[in-house]
Amino acid sequence: MTAYERELHLNVNILDAGKHPGAWRFQDDPRWFLDIDYFSTIARLAERGTFDAVFLSDGVALLSEPAEKPWQALEPTVLLAALARETEHVGLIGTASTTFNDPFNLARRFASLDHLSRGRAALNVVTSYSPRAAANFGLDVVPDHDARYARAEEFVDVLTGLWDSWDDDAITGKRDAVAFMDPAGVRPIHHRGEHFAVRGPLNVPRSPQGRPVLVQAGSSEVGKRFAARVAEVVFTAQTTHGAAQAFYADMKNRARAFGRDPGHLVVLPGLFPVVGSTEAEAWARKDALDELFPFDLELPRLAAQLGLDPADLPLDRELPYDLLGDAGQFTGSRGFLEATVNLARERGYTVRELLLSNGGGHRQVVGSPEQVVDSIEHWFHSRAADGFNLNFDVFPSGLETFVEHVIPELRRRGLFRSAYTGRTLRDHLGLPRPPRR
Amino acid sequence: MTAYERELHLNVNILDAGKHPGAWRFQDDPRWFLDIDYFSTIARLAERGTFDAVFLSDGVALLSEPAEKPWQALEPTVLLAALARETEHVGLIGTASTTFNDPFNLARRFASLDHLSRGRAALNVVTSYSPRAAANFGLDVVPDHDARYARAEEFVDVLTGLWDSWDDDAITGKRDAVAFMDPAGVRPIHHRGEHFAVRGPLNVPRSPQGRPVLVQAGSSEVGKRFAARVAEVVFTAQTTHGAAQAFYADMKNRARAFGRDPGHLVVLPGLFPVVGSTEAEAWARKDALDELFPFDLELPRLAAQLGLDPADLPLDRELPYDLLGDAGQFTGSRGFLEATVNLARERGYTVRELLLSNGGGHRQVVGSPEQVVDSIEHWFHSRAADGFNLNFDVFPSGLETFVEHVIPELRRRGLFRSAYTGRTLRDHLGLPRPPRR
Repeated sequence: MTAYERELHLNVNILDAGKHPGAWRFQDDPRWFLDIDYFSTIARLAERGTFDAVFLSDGVALLSEPAEKPWQALEPTVLLAALARETEHVGLIGTASTTFNDPFNLARRFASLDHLSRGRAALNVVTSYSPRAAANFGLDVVPDHDARYARAEEFVDVLTGLWDSWDDDAITGKRDAVAFMDPAGVRPIHHRGEHFAVRGPLNVPRSPQGRPVLVQAGSSEVGKRFAARVAEVVFTAQTTHGAAQAFYADMKNRARAFGRDPGHLVVLPGLFPVVGSTEAEAWARKDALDELFPFDLELPRLAAQLGLDPADLPLDRELPYDLLGDAGQFTGSRGFLEATVNLARERGYTVRELLLSNGGGHRQVVGSPEQVVDSIEHWFHSRAADGFNLNFDVFPSGLETFVEHVIPELRRRGLFRSAYTGRTLRDHLGLPRPPRR
Repeated sequence: MTAYERELHLNVNILDAGKHPGAWRFQDDPRWFLDIDYFSTIARLAERGTFDAVFLSDGVALLSEPAEKPWQALEPTVLLAALARETEHVGLIGTASTTFNDPFNLARRFASLDHLSRGRAALNVVTSYSPRAAANFGLDVVPDHDARYARAEEFVDVLTGLWDSWDDDAITGKRDAVAFMDPAGVRPIHHRGEHFAVRGPLNVPRSPQGRPVLVQAGSSEVGKRFAARVAEVVFTAQTTHGAAQAFYADMKNRARAFGRDPGHLVVLPGLFPVVGSTEAEAWARKDALDELFPFDLELPRLAAQLGLDPADLPLDRELPYDLLGDAGQFTGSRGFLEATVNLARERGYTVRELLLSNGGGHRQVVGSPEQVVDSIEHWFHSRAADGFNLNFDVFPSGLETFVEHVIPELRRRGLFRSAYTGRTLRDHLGLPRPPRR
């Protein structure tokens, strides 16, 4: 299928109206983010492009006050279940917080989604660092980083236990049994840990993929160890090739150290392509979008991402590197912090240039289809990535252009599948179906 | 539309393979209860019959050990979201426990479902009394009845607050705003109560119905007061006409006492019709099903429902009425207990006759389409019901027969709509869209 031993993997990150902060202005319907048809169009395009999966990030609070449009309003499992009926092949990755969920309920929803989609569900586990989220769940302060990860580790162990609480062949089809099943194939898990006591079994039989695919995006030491132990896909923010290669090698080595096949830990940096039929046309598209760039909103956001005050960031000066604090004290996403600082340093960007170039923390590539494919091929070939979690400037046009012009070029070079060869998301990702533990 | 001032309301209870405990034997695929196409067929039939809604009950544990098939495996919000894409009109009622959920997450999922379905979502609130469920959520014992209801009351207040945390017109469509919205139309709820501290606002704008429809099924004094205060639909188990009329009048009076329009509290007893083209054919169908009746499984279930030991229930004797304990001590569903005992007493049934006739706690009517419609009309006309939550013996055939033969007769008599006249579930149920509180 491909010219390489490895296979390239591509997701569509269905983020908002698109990754460009002015993207919402291109939506005709002001309620687009509540409209199933909007998401359905994107998911069908993703399937036409034989993407591995669509991905929904998530949060459980509004990010700002006074309120802005929620960045993901519709709850991911519910939205993905609807999209499961709009598509047949594309994987469905939903994000959920281990800090603000309960393992039994979450295990059940993702197992249900895996059944409904006939084996296309994945769970992207996040630990949530927003104090606003904590305040929606009875907590005055958000638990600290290590406490959240300790809970996440145990949470995932409970999920795995529950997903494995039924034998694959517990449903026997024998008509003299109780509803065709063998009761001996179902067992409680009797989990009693620091954070959870869960008896089990799950009230959902083992799902088509055995377990939904586990995705994680930790960038801290604790987060990377967690991902290397349990994740099957790792999302990461990488803006520079050297840092991406180092991260890639590190994660594969860490997986090996846990006795895992490093091929079963798929490393997917974010990528934000802006495509035109020529490089000049791509830049024309980018420049037109940037005229709508809301510096007044995005500067405070960048400041928060860096743990700084907006006043520390004059638009036409470089980043105040001396003010960038100790990462150990930082409460936001380390991955985005590092990716942003790496890019600014490597290119010597001013704050204004940085805002227009860092794709909200993900690598931005502006160019022709050939140039975008060159970049993808370079990173893939040089083991800086197994593929990419793709952001698009504006939905659906950015994705449409990619499917019509970039995907064919990827296929022409033998880099990407021209049709789905498997049925489940595990098939697409080259991940084995796990035996019951 | 109808010959009555009131409108008849009918739901399809998508329970298992059908209400008859032998129904699963008629399913060809042993994994039918995990197959979206099975549910989709039922939902489409319901829509063909212009039913108000389909209804999914729920529980968060297996009911027995050794394990039996889960009575509702796929999580309702996820399953209903998929069904929302299979249908256009029929309402989607999902059950969720206020004891084992968190109000922010649940408010969000049901608001999302209401958006995805364009105004067809309803939440059936239950408090859960299963110790097996408690053990899946870190509790060694299930909280007692009054404690569960106290939490449920506060839970629903938080839900309502969150659903109302956005103005209907917060999305303005103005292009100079942040994603077309007016931040002043979104406000925190700052709830701090006995059980929950929830800041809000919800990260989902107000949904098409304003709020999803609230359904409840309490039968205890506390449960009835709760339903009369907040529910818009009340499900109830009623096997005898007198008790049903009394319950109906009581609920309407209670609603009035809360200053509510009693027409906005829709009372729907369960009903279990077994239909044939003649009465004899209906009985032939019923008798054939009853040959598969699993007395060995259903007797212990009846005993548990009555708070008795199976040894107390010889099959060919009447119920041991003197052993039926004080309802105050009883931990199961009071509604099912009372409905079952009422039926046994009124008819002088033996345990065997009771098992074959009480439809698992819901009134069973065996007959021709005309006879079934007579019974529906009688109960509706005499204000024992505003309609029914219908159970079918075997899916899909029981529902198919009903849609093909009973629904036309209901329409012929002017009792039931022949087409949907509204767009939302509130429209179907004659419920107003609530203004923001």
